[in-house]
Amino acid sequence: MKQLTILGVGLLGGSIGLAVRAADPTCKIVGFGHRPQTLQKAQEIGAIDRAETDPAAAVAGSDLVILCTPVGAFEDILRKIAPALAPGCLLTDVGSTKRSVVKLAHSILKKGTEFVASHPIAGSEKRGVEYARTDLFRHHLCIVTPTPATPPAALHRALEFWQLLEMRVVQLSPEDHDRLMADVSHLPHLLAAALVAMQEEQSLDFCGRGFLDTTRIAAGDAALWRDILLDNADNLRSGVARLQEQLRQVMTLLEAKDREPLRQWLAAAAERREKIVERKLRTQKD
Amino acid sequence: MKQLTILGVGLLGGSIGLAVRAADPTCKIVGFGHRPQTLQKAQEIGAIDRAETDPAAAVAGSDLVILCTPVGAFEDILRKIAPALAPGCLLTDVGSTKRSVVKLAHSILKKGTEFVASHPIAGSEKRGVEYARTDLFRHHLCIVTPTPATPPAALHRALEFWQLLEMRVVQLSPEDHDRLMADVSHLPHLLAAALVAMQEEQSLDFCGRGFLDTTRIAAGDAALWRDILLDNADNLRSGVARLQEQLRQVMTLLEAKDREPLRQWLAAAAERREKIVERKLRTQKD
Repeated sequence: MKQLTILGVGLLGGSIGLAVRAADPTCKIVGFGHRPQTLQKAQEIGAIDRAETDPAAAVAGSDLVILCTPVGAFEDILRKIAPALAPGCLLTDVGSTKRSVVKLAHSILKKGTEFVASHPIAGSEKRGVEYARTDLFRHHLCIVTPTPATPPAALHRALEFWQLLEMRVVQLSPEDHDRLMADVSHLPHLLAAALVAMQEEQSLDFCGRGFLDTTRIAAGDAALWRDILLDNADNLRSGVARLQEQLRQVMTLLEAKDREPLRQWLAAAAERREKIVERKLRTQKD
Repeated sequence: MKQLTILGVGLLGGSIGLAVRAADPTCKIVGFGHRPQTLQKAQEIGAIDRAETDPAAAVAGSDLVILCTPVGAFEDILRKIAPALAPGCLLTDVGSTKRSVVKLAHSILKKGTEFVASHPIAGSEKRGVEYARTDLFRHHLCIVTPTPATPPAALHRALEFWQLLEMRVVQLSPEDHDRLMADVSHLPHLLAAALVAMQEEQSLDFCGRGFLDTTRIAAGDAALWRDILLDNADNLRSGVARLQEQLRQVMTLLEAKDREPLRQWLAAAAERREKIVERKLRTQKD
């Protein structure tokens, strides 16, 4: 890899720059962004070598280009960079939803441009290049979502790139990705926000550590999450329905004072969560 | 305070013993429990001076008696200790629900026995005297729930006791306590368990840090939580209904692709949570 372009140098883009710098010190790193302050900060911490405020200029001559802006900005940027991508350049992204991104790239990119959609699962509710870290991705999961149209060589290059960042890479279809992420990430976010929203004003003085842990993800950026939820609304609808069915079942047990089935339902949830923790410890964090 | 009896020496009972020992070293501490191993461990760590396996023997001669067993065991213990409580003895508890405890105490205790219900909000999903800590309660909130029938002198003694443990004490009616706790503690528990229960098996490999934080409280003891949820079922029903109304509203915004109202709903939840965090920092932890 001679030259990498990072489109959007926030927490994720900045951390990719730092990680590539550490793993492959000879690679030139170009960063695109709107704000000169952000680009300057990215240069200062060594996340990028060169800053560009024009996306087409930023991608010229790069072997690998990574879309790291919010998903809502992808269409505009794809249209601008499509004519400027070098032959043989691989394009990937870090978006939290994958069906719409794959569709968008397919409709905009020229034939011959190689695109492989990716979702590295790392980051936090914090945003901005000032939180960028070399090890943000290390040992975390990256879901790569090829389609039947993805050239095997392009897929191979994408997998290799995320492995360079020491990520555990798995492949899913864009459809499976969005369905699973709705359940384990987007629905929990929606629920956390709903749980905060339904509280009476008086309750706020009585929220303890449990409440704050449960709702931590609701602190995320509203515009970013709005776009994710809108993009995955169909899967969320299914998730909300299945959650409501669980609530209906447990409320029925409560009304009937069905002590032992109620205990079993709670114990099964506690055991299942413990299983998730154990799997995670085996494969390290995320 | 010459002698204190702790009925049930688990995490909370054991920590009360350690904290009283530190704050008032001349006070004798008697512990009641079923399991000799637990009582022995409580003695070893200095949480109690004397162990009893008979609750009536444990309360004899004490100025203060604290019920620290699960709420489900209260009725049986109250019947056993009622005849043995010394004149002028103050009885309190650490149960997570208050209406049923107040009613139970009122129906079982002799006239003249002073009972003031309390809920020190501390602890964790861990259980057992081996996790007991002197500072478990320090700076945390204790809700004391007097009724119009509570003698002011008894209320005063209860408030003083929890302040001795360096708790921030507030007063609520048993009804307000149960209503507020349903929203900020019992409903979040129910939701966390439902969120784990509704997952497909395949999803378990994709649960990240956000999911684990959101569902941490679901790891609590199933029988203990079963009793809490059963005891507060009416308030939970109201909480579930209000949560479902929030979910209905946000799904309507999603279906209509109402971008700005959706962003505002998410931003309001994030800001509201931030307000809770700030209040908490001002008053220290819990």
